[in-house]
Amino acid sequence: MTTIALFGAGFIGRVHAASIVGHPRTRLGWVCDVDQTAAERAAGSTGARVTTEPADVWADDQVDAVVIASSTDTHADLLSQAVRAGRAVYCEKPIDLDIDRVRAVAAEVQDSDVPVFMGFSRRYDANHAAVHAAVTDGDVGEVELMHLLSRGPEAPPVSYIRRSGGQFRDQTIHLFDLASWIAGQDPVEVYATGAALTDPAIADAGDIDTSIVVLTMPSGALCQIDSCRRCAYGYDERIEVYGSAGMIESGRKPVREVTRWTGDQIISHGLHPGWFERIEPTFAAAFDAFVGVVDGQVPLYPSLQDGLRAQMIAEAAVASLHAHRPVEIAYYWQAS
Amino acid sequence: MTTIALFGAGFIGRVHAASIVGHPRTRLGWVCDVDQTAAERAAGSTGARVTTEPADVWADDQVDAVVIASSTDTHADLLSQAVRAGRAVYCEKPIDLDIDRVRAVAAEVQDSDVPVFMGFSRRYDANHAAVHAAVTDGDVGEVELMHLLSRGPEAPPVSYIRRSGGQFRDQTIHLFDLASWIAGQDPVEVYATGAALTDPAIADAGDIDTSIVVLTMPSGALCQIDSCRRCAYGYDERIEVYGSAGMIESGRKPVREVTRWTGDQIISHGLHPGWFERIEPTFAAAFDAFVGVVDGQVPLYPSLQDGLRAQMIAEAAVASLHAHRPVEIAYYWQAS
Amino acid sequence: MTTIALFGAGFIGRVHAASIVGHPRTRLGWVCDVDQTAAERAAGSTGARVTTEPADVWADDQVDAVVIASSTDTHADLLSQAVRAGRAVYCEKPIDLDIDRVRAVAAEVQDSDVPVFMGFSRRYDANHAAVHAAVTDGDVGEVELMHLLSRGPEAPPVSYIRRSGGQFRDQTIHLFDLASWIAGQDPVEVYATGAALTDPAIADAGDIDTSIVVLTMPSGALCQIDSCRRCAYGYDERIEVYGSAGMIESGRKPVREVTRWTGDQIISHGLHPGWFERIEPTFAAAFDAFVGVVDGQVPLYPSLQDGLRAQMIAEAAVASLHAHRPVEIAYYWQAS
Amino acid sequence: MTTIALFGAGFIGRVHAASIVGHPRTRLGWVCDVDQTAAERAAGSTGARVTTEPADVWADDQVDAVVIASSTDTHADLLSQAVRAGRAVYCEKPIDLDIDRVRAVAAEVQDSDVPVFMGFSRRYDANHAAVHAAVTDGDVGEVELMHLLSRGPEAPPVSYIRRSGGQFRDQTIHLFDLASWIAGQDPVEVYATGAALTDPAIADAGDIDTSIVVLTMPSGALCQIDSCRRCAYGYDERIEVYGSAGMIESGRKPVREVTRWTGDQIISHGLHPGWFERIEPTFAAAFDAFVGVVDGQVPLYPSLQDGLRAQMIAEAAVASLHAHRPVEIAYYWQAS
Repeated sequence: MTTIALFGAGFIGRVHAASIVGHPRTRLGWVCDVDQTAAERAAGSTGARVTTEPADVWADDQVDAVVIASSTDTHADLLSQAVRAGRAVYCEKPIDLDIDRVRAVAAEVQDSDVPVFMGFSRRYDANHAAVHAAVTDGDVGEVELMHLLSRGPEAPPVSYIRRSGGQFRDQTIHLFDLASWIAGQDPVEVYATGAALTDPAIADAGDIDTSIVVLTMPSGALCQIDSCRRCAYGYDERIEVYGSAGMIESGRKPVREVTRWTGDQIISHGLHPGWFERIEPTFAAAFDAFVGVVDGQVPLYPSLQDGLRAQMIAEAAVASLHAHRPVEIAYYWQAS
Repeated sequence: MTTIALFGAGFIGRVHAASIVGHPRTRLGWVCDVDQTAAERAAGSTGARVTTEPADVWADDQVDAVVIASSTDTHADLLSQAVRAGRAVYCEKPIDLDIDRVRAVAAEVQDSDVPVFMGFSRRYDANHAAVHAAVTDGDVGEVELMHLLSRGPEAPPVSYIRRSGGQFRDQTIHLFDLASWIAGQDPVEVYATGAALTDPAIADAGDIDTSIVVLTMPSGALCQIDSCRRCAYGYDERIEVYGSAGMIESGRKPVREVTRWTGDQIISHGLHPGWFERIEPTFAAAFDAFVGVVDGQVPLYPSLQDGLRAQMIAEAAVASLHAHRPVEIAYYWQAS
Repeated sequence: MTTIALFGAGFIGRVHAASIVGHPRTRLGWVCDVDQTAAERAAGSTGARVTTEPADVWADDQVDAVVIASSTDTHADLLSQAVRAGRAVYCEKPIDLDIDRVRAVAAEVQDSDVPVFMGFSRRYDANHAAVHAAVTDGDVGEVELMHLLSRGPEAPPVSYIRRSGGQFRDQTIHLFDLASWIAGQDPVEVYATGAALTDPAIADAGDIDTSIVVLTMPSGALCQIDSCRRCAYGYDERIEVYGSAGMIESGRKPVREVTRWTGDQIISHGLHPGWFERIEPTFAAAFDAFVGVVDGQVPLYPSLQDGLRAQMIAEAAVASLHAHRPVEIAYYWQAS
Repeated sequence: MTTIALFGAGFIGRVHAASIVGHPRTRLGWVCDVDQTAAERAAGSTGARVTTEPADVWADDQVDAVVIASSTDTHADLLSQAVRAGRAVYCEKPIDLDIDRVRAVAAEVQDSDVPVFMGFSRRYDANHAAVHAAVTDGDVGEVELMHLLSRGPEAPPVSYIRRSGGQFRDQTIHLFDLASWIAGQDPVEVYATGAALTDPAIADAGDIDTSIVVLTMPSGALCQIDSCRRCAYGYDERIEVYGSAGMIESGRKPVREVTRWTGDQIISHGLHPGWFERIEPTFAAAFDAFVGVVDGQVPLYPSLQDGLRAQMIAEAAVASLHAHRPVEIAYYWQAS
């Protein structure tokens, strides 16, 4: 059994706690959160110990690996500590909102041999993974055009938006990762445009809620991404990859396959009410892959470098949005 | 140019008139109907001559072929006259409601070399024809199970139902033809059950409006057919063929590919409002095939024997419905 | 915590063991199987005790409820014992293959206040349940026609078929339950026909592999059911309910929403490879409902009487198949 | 009967000839083409007169209206002549490739009362028109995001590409018109990017074959358009409109509703082989609307101003492509 410590007992923390408890090869050793009560609630009857001090976790020799699901501003410090403590890490995105801080901690990770698994769990979505496999196998030939989208269902609170780094760093970042991963290429240029169309408070917070991003791949392939914070029909996520030999789609996933015919209409049950319901199975699937990494059975994937790439694209997208022109994407590891 | 005479200036007669006028290799020579005014309306500005007397048509040497779209009780007489006059015939179904009359005229046709094309135009529906081709090519392996359906949208007037021979002879007969044609087999047994669920007047007329028919093929394959006179969602026609290597479907045909996502629903535009709108293109396609037959360019298909088979199945279905047990199907041409 | 004892450590037994272990309000107290090794394997590291003797289970005061997932010939005895021991039961279908034995044990259950939950877990399938709810709410008006199907993917071993009671009692029985449940009616008549088309050994075993059953409801509504033991495209299960106000469908469930366009084809990922993969989530959902029944929180559903009804329909279907004519369905509880 | 003269006897000219001949209220008076033989072939047995001299057409008092389907470089001259001759015009796009020439002839048209109907026949596609109607009726609320695409199936000859003005002026222009029409807004800014990915000869001709265009609407709504010259799965055209109350789609149109299930695949018949097969019905529908305009029965729609708008967007898209930055769209009629 692998003993896992969990940092963060909020919503996503509790999702990870369930994965850890439900996995046949792991046990939950610690729950660490600044809020002792939240930590206790997440630990529940699992037998996990509870603390508000990360040091307690690092001091425990039984802990094999950690899951970082605490607030964004703690990720970099905890990553550093984990590297020094030699514990494998499953880290929620983003690494940090300060890109210099990101680079510094990335250097630490790269200089170590500690595996850091980035929580881009969508790579483990059955639909997306099948599209990735098909594209990698050449089923659509050379990739020429992609379309990804993430829509809704409703904007998070403005207080969250202010802390989140904005739509590109918070929502679109998942699509930046998926696009690079599926295309097998690091985009070289980004053009971004957007507006706050659903709530003036989002504009006041300096953010947008409806956007289009165009990525250019080194091969010349183009990728269009649309992101919306509010969606009147649930949570919509879709990927289309168009190539020289055909097109493949990771399609909309309905909650049920139930359809009613009446009058001149055909009415089907719709999409999931929120992003979490849509991608819920990916958390356990990604955690299972992480356990395989810790056990040395599967290669590390997605890595911190994948997290870094997605953040670099997001930074460039923000720059493009403000400059109102296409912007070249500078990657840390290319510059170094 | 082939000169065609049209018998019957009712709704279907006028559909055929349009096919004749619109076809590049035919002209409409005569419209013959007991109602002179109807005949004149159908002839319109086409230059066609008009009469209430079939004899006028047979006397005209210019007439190469005839379309029989008059009332059912005139079909057999006109067929006989056409055979004697040596004119190719496109004949709407059924041949006659009196099965002895059917056998007699079928014998006349078989003893002649006059081509008689039965108006089972659904064989020329693009979807159905593709399914027929795939099954014939072995794409689903050995046929084991079929499901056909024809539903709605609303019952014809009871006055029509009384004259029509009932649901099996009037509506389901098309599916009897399609099932035999696609399976490439003449069914050997039929079990039929049904009820008048939508209108007591249909029961009073001795008919049903909702039915299930099970056909057994000589290979052992089974075929289920459901027919409904009233359908709350337009006209629904569908064919599914299940075999040892897979299944193929001639699916529902929407009027438009337009879909709206809203709330927890996905709402698509529905089916055609009536059977005619659904199969309208098949009339011109079948007529074009008939012209090819007259020109000697394509083999005769569907033939009078196809019409006879479908009627024999319908007769046996009626017998099964009344006897409340499975009934063997006796084919005229097997007995002779 | 509710302590559950499990009878039967075969494939389905182990599925139930996982449900019991994974449920937040239950623990696995015992695994009882004639094969001690199998019982031990199912108990695994759960802490459950293991026995080959049912008496050990009944003697344990800690046991609140039992799951009967042992071989069919033991169901009736274990049910009797559970009733006498006053333990709530989750019982896999069928109750017994001997219909007199079924009636006897049903009488025992009805005379007791022991809840017996029949394992018709498909009622807890999200698609089927939504159709049931819609039909019950009148969304399709008066039910007039139904179509249910269960196909493939491959026939069980002939040794199993010989013991199973045949296709109607083993496979179609689930659709008999679903049809009655959704229609809210007990069918009054059945016509069944079928053949062994895929393997002569099935015919030698006195069974069929491809069948059509027509049920007549007291309202006059008709229901057609097709069942196939072998299916070249995975496991296919579908329900269509047609009524005076429209039609609703519990549609085919794909494994993934992934589609590729190439040349003149659109190729989607298909159905589940087997019935288990298709309905896997229903086991945990049904078990959760059973726990609610044991806790007195939800009404018992489906009950032993539901199991009895489905078996009576299956008996009548077998009788119809052999008599080659429609057969009236006699229900035990109507006669008593 | 309205007498129509046709300029241009090429492929599209012959399509229009068929519409004119098939329409119940029009006759084909003249076919005028620089190639006398082509004109004669298009006239066929319709009784139309044939000429290589436009003057012959203008001199004929019988001619009520003209269809301009000749080569692009003749459109502006023929439009001028038609205005002076007072004949209603159905004009294929584009007006002219020289934008100054476009403005000049547009001024002539606007100063006259001659109706000029632009051949944006896609507005009469049943799917697109239903989406336009729904959006106009507010079915998706305020429009926030649109996605339009036109793909394949194969690039025209490079000789054509050189004369065509390039992908934006030749292919994407239809989507510029559809986007403005459906949104009910004139876009204010365009960003365009693209590459020649399928054939180096297209790059040599100074053109692209794969592109993304982002339009900004005055309301802030965003519109993404992708255009591809080569498509490995037929001709693909699709429109998605996303708004505050939901989303509506003019979906892919299959050639047939035929689907085969086999193994782990579901294989449907695909899209049309080319753009013409996809939109063929729109030519007759648009021509019928034009006849209504000539008869004074329906308002003029789409007008020359619609043609002008689409060309202005195309011009700005070309400018953006070359400048590699977003470009404001300057409309002629705003400047005047």
